[in-house]
Order: sequence, then structure tokens, then C-alpha cells
Amino acid sequence: MKILLVGASGTLGSAVAEALDARGHELVTVGRTGGDIRLDVADPEAVGRLYERVTGLDAVAVAGGDAVFKPLSELTADDFAATLRTKALSQLELVRQGARHLAPNGSFTLVSGVLTEEPVVAGAAASAANGAVEAFVRAAAIELAPQRVNAVSPTLLTESVEAYGAVFPGVEPVPAASVAAAYVRSVEGRHTGRVYRVGH
Amino acid sequence: MKILLVGASGTLGSAVAEALDARGHELVTVGRTGGDIRLDVADPEAVGRLYERVTGLDAVAVAGGDAVFKPLSELTADDFAATLRTKALSQLELVRQGARHLAPNGSFTLVSGVLTEEPVVAGAAASAANGAVEAFVRAAAIELAPQRVNAVSPTLLTESVEAYGAVFPGVEPVPAASVAAAYVRSVEGRHTGRVYRVGH
Repeated sequence: MKILLVGASGTLGSAVAEALDARGHELVTVGRTGGDIRLDVADPEAVGRLYERVTGLDAVAVAGGDAVFKPLSELTADDFAATLRTKALSQLELVRQGARHLAPNGSFTLVSGVLTEEPVVAGAAASAANGAVEAFVRAAAIELAPQRVNAVSPTLLTESVEAYGAVFPGVEPVPAASVAAAYVRSVEGRHTGRVYRVGH
Repeated sequence: MKILLVGASGTLGSAVAEALDARGHELVTVGRTGGDIRLDVADPEAVGRLYERVTGLDAVAVAGGDAVFKPLSELTADDFAATLRTKALSQLELVRQGARHLAPNGSFTLVSGVLTEEPVVAGAAASAANGAVEAFVRAAAIELAPQRVNAVSPTLLTESVEAYGAVFPGVEPVPAASVAAAYVRSVEGRHTGRVYRVGH
């Protein structure tokens, strides 16, 4: 399949790229700072240009999205709005516009995270964005068929323990490769409206 | 208790006002088109003015929020952004700013809805907003204590069957008074981080 992978240069994205590549898929990678195509998917117009440029897609997978982490008492209205835009609306927009461009049996695989259900201190904006993504996946699935849409919800990655482990006390990490396997399930399987929780 | 009730003029809001009034609470009602104070809580600056004006609050309860209902193929990027602003960010902002103004053991009761888990056609934007509210509630709860925050998630209201029943085939409605009881549980109880699902 020809797959658009957003966020391919991140820790998770690299593992997803490797897993999809190992399955023989053709990847087109997109990122703000790296990849075959450099653009910011948080800009709806950029998403439109992306789909004009990359045609013949069978799947879109998202492996990254920015969120502001600050104690609730320090988060601003702009922090909440920005996190919803970069982590949630960007992904909704990839689906909304992509539905017209993908193959009739194409699929979208979005990313949420453990914070939807298991919050951590300073993660309120990220939790809200993840919750939006997961509820959207369930809702969009019933309208997109035969196209499909799922989300992968990773817990803390083994590769990220050094950077983020302190924020997740007592949380057992999983290797990015295990999370990447859920992307393969979503892309090659027939599920839709599912949230694949990995490691939690 | 002195309670700020947002959306008191709607179908649900009227029932919540009645239930809280029957419990002997003092209500200050807020709405875009009716209530003791008229303003749009989707504007963060208006929320700031609201908390300057109404002091000594023990609780904030939200019983309404607008969402755009359209088939996924007709929803625009602006529809998604607007629905997240009016149904989700407005409520997050009432909590974010309210934390500084409410009593130390004060509480917030937000509103989500059945669409978080049980989507309907044309409800993808509303689902996303509800998902954001519910995940935020779980996250904010761990940082707000001893203040509390919960959400009430109603299914279709008996009073709304005529207007919205066609959108919810086979969904058994519940009276607004039953949903209002969950607001009393949230306000007078000690729970936090809970989503009270009523009728589903």
C-alpha cells in the first residue's frame, strides 16, 4: 500500500516507519522539520496542499503531535487552544480532507495516548486533545465506511523514559516497536472505530 | 451553596436549575441569551469578567454548549474548531480560571454527552468535543484537589425527542430531571474526576 506517514521523524514515527517498511509498504513521510514533505499539518490549508501533491494513497498514519505540558494552574487559554489544534484538530483535518482523496477502502490511523484515561500532573491539555481524537475516531468510523479510521494509544515508550519517565511515576514503558505493531494492525486489518491501547 | 449555572435557560439547564433550587442552593444563572448575566463563555475574556463580577462561589455547573451537527463530508475545518471552542474550550476555561476564584472545596460540574461513546451520524464534531471534556475532567481532577471536577453525560432527553429523536434511532430517552439529579450528586457529593453517564 501507499501510506502517508505524518511525524515519521519522531521516536514513535521512526518505529512505525520501520514496521510499515518491513511489511513492504511504500511510505511518503511528512513532518514539520523532516521527511519527504515538510509542512505543518496543524494548518488546514497545508493539509489541502498535501493531498493535492500526494495522490494514490491507501492509508494515512499519524505518529506525532505536539502538546503543551504545564501544571493546570500555569496553562493558559492559548495553551489549551494550541494543544487542541496541534494534537487533535490536525488529525481530524487529515481525516476530513483525506476522505475525498484516499482509496475507497483506505484507512486512517491516528494517535492518542494513555493520558485519555490515565492522567498525569501537567498533562491536562494533552488529555483533552487525546480524548477528542478517540471520540472522533469512534464517530467518524460510522460515516467513513468502507474507509476505516482507528487510533493507537501508546503508554510511555521505553525509548522516552529518560526524557519523560519522571512525569509518569510507576508507569511501565513499552518499546516503540510494540506500538508500531498496532499501526500495522490498523492499516492491514479490517477494524474501524477502534482505539488500540498499547501497554495500558 | 452559591452556584454559577451556565446554560440555565436550555432544556437541561432549566431542570438543573430546578433541582439545585429545590436543594436550597443560591443560583446565579449565565447564558448567551438569558439568565442573570448574559455573556458568551466561549470568549475567555468574558469568562474572566464573569469571575470578577460573581464572587463567593462554591460551585460552577454547566448545562449547555453548542455543537455543529453535519454529515462528516459536509463539516468544515471551521465547524470542528468552532465546536471544540463552544462545547469544550469554553468549559475548560471556566475551570481553568475558576480554580482561582472558587472556594477551596468548591466544585465544577461540566457537561459532555452520550456521543463520546455512542456516536450518531452527523455528530463527529460533537463527539470530539465531548471526548475532550471527559478526558480533561479526569486530568484536571488530580491537580485541582481539594476542589473537585466532574462531568455529566446525558443521553437523549425525553423533552428533546421531538426535536432530536430522529438523529438517535432506538435510543431510549431519559427525563431531564434524571440528568439534573446527577448534577446534585456532583455538587453535593465528594466525587472528583467522574463522568456520570445518565441513561446510557
